[in-house]
Amino acid sequence: MVPSFDLKAWTQEQAGRLEKALSDWVAPPSQAPASAGLQQLKEAMRYAVLDGGKRLRPLLALAACEAVGGNPQAALRAACAVELIHAYSLVHDDMPCMDNDVLRRGKPTVHVQFGEAQALLAGDALQALAFELLTPADTAVDTATQAQLCRVLAQASGAQGMAGGQAIDLASVGLPLDADQLREMHRLKTGALLKASVLMGALCGHPNDATLLALGEYGAAIGLAFQVVDDILDVTADSATLGKTAGKDAFHDKPTFVSLMGLDASKAYAGQLLARALTSLDAVDGANPHGTAALRALADMLVNRHY
Amino acid sequence: MVPSFDLKAWTQEQAGRLEKALSDWVAPPSQAPASAGLQQLKEAMRYAVLDGGKRLRPLLALAACEAVGGNPQAALRAACAVELIHAYSLVHDDMPCMDNDVLRRGKPTVHVQFGEAQALLAGDALQALAFELLTPADTAVDTATQAQLCRVLAQASGAQGMAGGQAIDLASVGLPLDADQLREMHRLKTGALLKASVLMGALCGHPNDATLLALGEYGAAIGLAFQVVDDILDVTADSATLGKTAGKDAFHDKPTFVSLMGLDASKAYAGQLLARALTSLDAVDGANPHGTAALRALADMLVNRHY
Repeated sequence: MVPSFDLKAWTQEQAGRLEKALSDWVAPPSQAPASAGLQQLKEAMRYAVLDGGKRLRPLLALAACEAVGGNPQAALRAACAVELIHAYSLVHDDMPCMDNDVLRRGKPTVHVQFGEAQALLAGDALQALAFELLTPADTAVDTATQAQLCRVLAQASGAQGMAGGQAIDLASVGLPLDADQLREMHRLKTGALLKASVLMGALCGHPNDATLLALGEYGAAIGLAFQVVDDILDVTADSATLGKTAGKDAFHDKPTFVSLMGLDASKAYAGQLLARALTSLDAVDGANPHGTAALRALADMLVNRHY
Repeated sequence: MVPSFDLKAWTQEQAGRLEKALSDWVAPPSQAPASAGLQQLKEAMRYAVLDGGKRLRPLLALAACEAVGGNPQAALRAACAVELIHAYSLVHDDMPCMDNDVLRRGKPTVHVQFGEAQALLAGDALQALAFELLTPADTAVDTATQAQLCRVLAQASGAQGMAGGQAIDLASVGLPLDADQLREMHRLKTGALLKASVLMGALCGHPNDATLLALGEYGAAIGLAFQVVDDILDVTADSATLGKTAGKDAFHDKPTFVSLMGLDASKAYAGQLLARALTSLDAVDGANPHGTAALRALADMLVNRHY
């Protein structure tokens, strides 16, 4: 650890850049008078993305870019793109045919606010926008990096990543998954995009193979830790603190790390994963504590969070 | 026109390449035993894409690549990617919260066959796969082209393209759109992706600006013509011929070119758009009738089709 690193100050600074970029890039209202339908779509997209969320994925991307001394312009695009994928997945996940959730970050979910059809379209358009952000026509980001970022994000989002994990989740309700199957589901469902966030940030600095591997291991470890902690909080925190419905997994008879391993073993497991994540960072090329300080502090925060 | 061009033979040859590529690339069954949920997702994705459709968009991409003597490997990826976007849009469009359609190409729609949640995820995963296909790690497609193809496809799919057009469509039911507003809706809803198909094929050959502009005009003209003809067929053809429910637009009180202009004027308009598309091709760099023969024949087929 780097005790002197001020995560709060770093996060505030990054969050300022992020929120401005998201507000500038996510469906800004049309200059020319646009049709009502198009304005509603844009409003739904902005509602889904702005003023909410911990921004964990974009912060990971920005921190990974810092760790390798990469192109900050490229990292900002990568950070926003990965957040758009996350945001669209929440919009679709909340819909009646999926989790049928009416509350998200303390606000009505997108389909409650704008109707199901607009929620479906807003999610679809946010996914497209993620890839648009990664491929600017200007030369601030070289095209080789643009293509790599698209590849990593597409793989992490699709059937071999997030969408695949959600499909496993759908089919697993009420089934007796073992710990390996549960890990595999979460590796895809949430782990893939968290790992991609780290890798995408790193790719903005053209890292060597050893560094990319090390950061991938860090990303995989915190990706899994994130879910273990989520499962712990689902039974230990209340809805007001979480900003979403607590106890939902147990209610829906969904397998969780806590239901499989028990609460204490789950907490110990989260601690092991944190240690693994921090150790991985030692193999980052030319690793110095300052370069990886933000990544270390984010991993620590993520495992020791209370919501 | 090039009277000697054999569109049927050309289409059959291209369709063979296309179907093989789609079957190889769209969610092939896992080698290792995968969870039931993931297998179902992949099955839904293949069901949505394989064995169906006129493949108009990929044929346009392949023909545009031929017109400029581009990289056929890149064009095959562009062709499949644009078809995946089209396929995902149909899956989502058919869902109960949108058009609530149970029949597509004579088969049950994806949500009828696999359930709504899987349909939602399959559509999402198909969109991600489109961008994955455009960004292979090998060197058969240079990264500048990869990035350009992603940019054009993302723009054509999102709020400034297909999804935006669908949102306008949603909001327009029962409203008295004028011809300009109707054209704007279709320019986004179906036109953007048809035009992108042509542009993406062309970009595989590094065309000069004049050629890209000419092919863009061709794409815009046939994109609009396609919709005018769709509206004509909706009132003149029967469901069995169309493979989908005929008379649907009138039933839902949706504005169409036929309801605005009348049947005869709509037919004349389609003919004018065809003429405009064919004229545009004269400005393709080094234009020779053989290079653009497939594009000419496709435009003709598209306007004079019966289903």
